[in-house]
Amino acid sequence: MSKSIFYHAGCPVCVSAEHDIVNLIGQDQVDIVNIGEDRSRIGEAEAAGITSVPALVTPNGNVLHINFGASLADVKG
Amino acid sequence: MSKSIFYHAGCPVCVSAEHDIVNLIGQDQVDIVNIGEDRSRIGEAEAAGITSVPALVTPNGNVLHINFGASLADVKG
Repeated sequence: MSKSIFYHAGCPVCVSAEHDIVNLIGQDQVDIVNIGEDRSRIGEAEAAGITSVPALVTPNGNVLHINFGASLADVKG
Repeated sequence: MSKSIFYHAGCPVCVSAEHDIVNLIGQDQVDIVNIGEDRSRIGEAEAAGITSVPALVTPNGNVLHINFGASLADVKG
């Protein structure tokens, strides 16, 4: 994969970080996934190693947890 | 300012995140500051709102704490 994936859950911290990441790396370089809404992708986020949102998975598969909005456990509810 | 500033302290988590950030946003778009070595810049990091490293301060002044390497208190020692 050549794009990064930004996972979030719609929280204020998530939205702020989303704006910053899009500004920094460019809208066309990142797919945005809201796992609070698109719950079918929670498993994919978990498999990538994400433990909290917002988080960015880089093209080489590294996870960058950015600030702290909510734990994945909280998103799963 | 138009560049981001990446503050770190030389820890393994910091170095890994530095590589990811440089790859994502480009070497020429980010200044790298090691506050473990350049201790005169710890105050500047603190004033920007950084509480742990690694952290990125965006051109508009937002702080993105990325993963967790060390608290600023630990860096200050």
